[in-house]
Amino acid sequence: MDLFTIADIIGICAFALAGFLVGVRKELDILGICIAAFLTALGGGIIRDTIVQTTPFAFREIYPFICIVSVIVLAIALKVHQRQNLDQNRLFIVADSIGLVAFSITGTLIALENNLNIFGVIFLAFLTATGGGIVRDALVNEIPFVLNADFYGSVAIITAMLILLADMLGVLDHTAIFIIGTLCLALRLFAYFRG
Amino acid sequence: MDLFTIADIIGICAFALAGFLVGVRKELDILGICIAAFLTALGGGIIRDTIVQTTPFAFREIYPFICIVSVIVLAIALKVHQRQNLDQNRLFIVADSIGLVAFSITGTLIALENNLNIFGVIFLAFLTATGGGIVRDALVNEIPFVLNADFYGSVAIITAMLILLADMLGVLDHTAIFIIGTLCLALRLFAYFRG
Amino acid sequence: MDLFTIADIIGICAFALAGFLVGVRKELDILGICIAAFLTALGGGIIRDTIVQTTPFAFREIYPFICIVSVIVLAIALKVHQRQNLDQNRLFIVADSIGLVAFSITGTLIALENNLNIFGVIFLAFLTATGGGIVRDALVNEIPFVLNADFYGSVAIITAMLILLADMLGVLDHTAIFIIGTLCLALRLFAYFRG
Repeated sequence: MDLFTIADIIGICAFALAGFLVGVRKELDILGICIAAFLTALGGGIIRDTIVQTTPFAFREIYPFICIVSVIVLAIALKVHQRQNLDQNRLFIVADSIGLVAFSITGTLIALENNLNIFGVIFLAFLTATGGGIVRDALVNEIPFVLNADFYGSVAIITAMLILLADMLGVLDHTAIFIIGTLCLALRLFAYFRG
Repeated sequence: MDLFTIADIIGICAFALAGFLVGVRKELDILGICIAAFLTALGGGIIRDTIVQTTPFAFREIYPFICIVSVIVLAIALKVHQRQNLDQNRLFIVADSIGLVAFSITGTLIALENNLNIFGVIFLAFLTATGGGIVRDALVNEIPFVLNADFYGSVAIITAMLILLADMLGVLDHTAIFIIGTLCLALRLFAYFRG
Repeated sequence: MDLFTIADIIGICAFALAGFLVGVRKELDILGICIAAFLTALGGGIIRDTIVQTTPFAFREIYPFICIVSVIVLAIALKVHQRQNLDQNRLFIVADSIGLVAFSITGTLIALENNLNIFGVIFLAFLTATGGGIVRDALVNEIPFVLNADFYGSVAIITAMLILLADMLGVLDHTAIFIIGTLCLALRLFAYFRG
């Protein structure tokens, strides 16, 4: 299992937990809570893959499904829904930020593979990272958080632009991606905890 | 015309009527009411076909279009919009439940044809059956009913899992689908009228 | 640059400005305002291209991106957001109506190329012209204007039906499209300023 898959798994789990918490807060029933968890974690990727005309990753690989089911079972077992402000917990923020950056990187790389232009690259990175949360918030009738909290979506855009730059300079390899990912993660955490 | 097409037509008509009634209740103008009827009946299938990369069924076959136009014309002629609680009428509930099960079966079979994994199969069945209603509710700013009324969406998931089981056991044929469909329909009606 | 591209550019700019104004009115932050502008201008086309399984136009051609960025920069420089009722300005209405008709024509032609049936043609024309605004309004929790303002969406449907008629009669060429477009634009402006 490579480093990127690990980051992807951390992201899926964090996003699923975020969705679970929104479902609980909105007093959805158990099916509604599960839908919120699945949509948040996988919605962005499903829309992205549909746009670039491939079978959604989550419909081919089984590990995202297993991660999310595990998160839901654990969250219920640990009565996570009775705790206050879990979504401001430090560990949660770090996991969520890893997901944000990992998902932005996937979206960017898939856009580059499909030879999209600069707008397509940024759009796909942004959509992969925030699309699940946007769909979830639209369904429960909240204005998507990303429309009001700029230094979340901006991280996705910055990540996409740095990778695009590395690609143009011809230096896009695993090391470059790792460095860009670390930088953007640091930027996000710095902005969150200082701002 | 086979049994399945009949079930599909009953479902399309029931869903179109459900959409029509939501449009009336939300005081949309006539175009808005038509959009609500069309989206409810066809939205799930259009999204499903887009995800599996085929031309939407409703854009190839003409009978869904004719069904929905007929429902709208009849509903206006019969002044259906002036009646109270039509969406709790027994006949409407039965027709809507037939649609729910028929649409779940279509979604499952299309997912199996496309070799999706278990999550993909459940997702597609659920989306086909409830996607139109979810999009409609999101547009008129209601929390989609399926997020709060678990034994509607659950029927789609159970239908998908039973068909998946029959497929794994190698016994998936027309008879098996008919038996599963009848069972799930009974389950839904029992839950509705007893619960 | 042909006449059609000019109409397309006018439409993109008008739609981007409409999105910008909604973002300002809803008090979104700068990123949210940009998303509203981009979604309004390009959302319909991206969904349309996804349904007919081609790479979205806006991900291949760069001019829509440049148009929208220019609109946003100009709108900020000219402090457009401080003016009252700009979206009822005559020039804005004319530009928006050109966009409505131009986008309807594109949607119709793409549907015809893909051999969709009459419902598919009308759906795609309507979606191309109004889809961006619908998604934007759904996100900011307003009932999409098109559900309540019938002589906007209706223009898209009439445009589609006239082009479809011309196609059936075997007279669909550049001249016919230009005449139909001019007629529908006149119809929209007449309805707006007289009604």
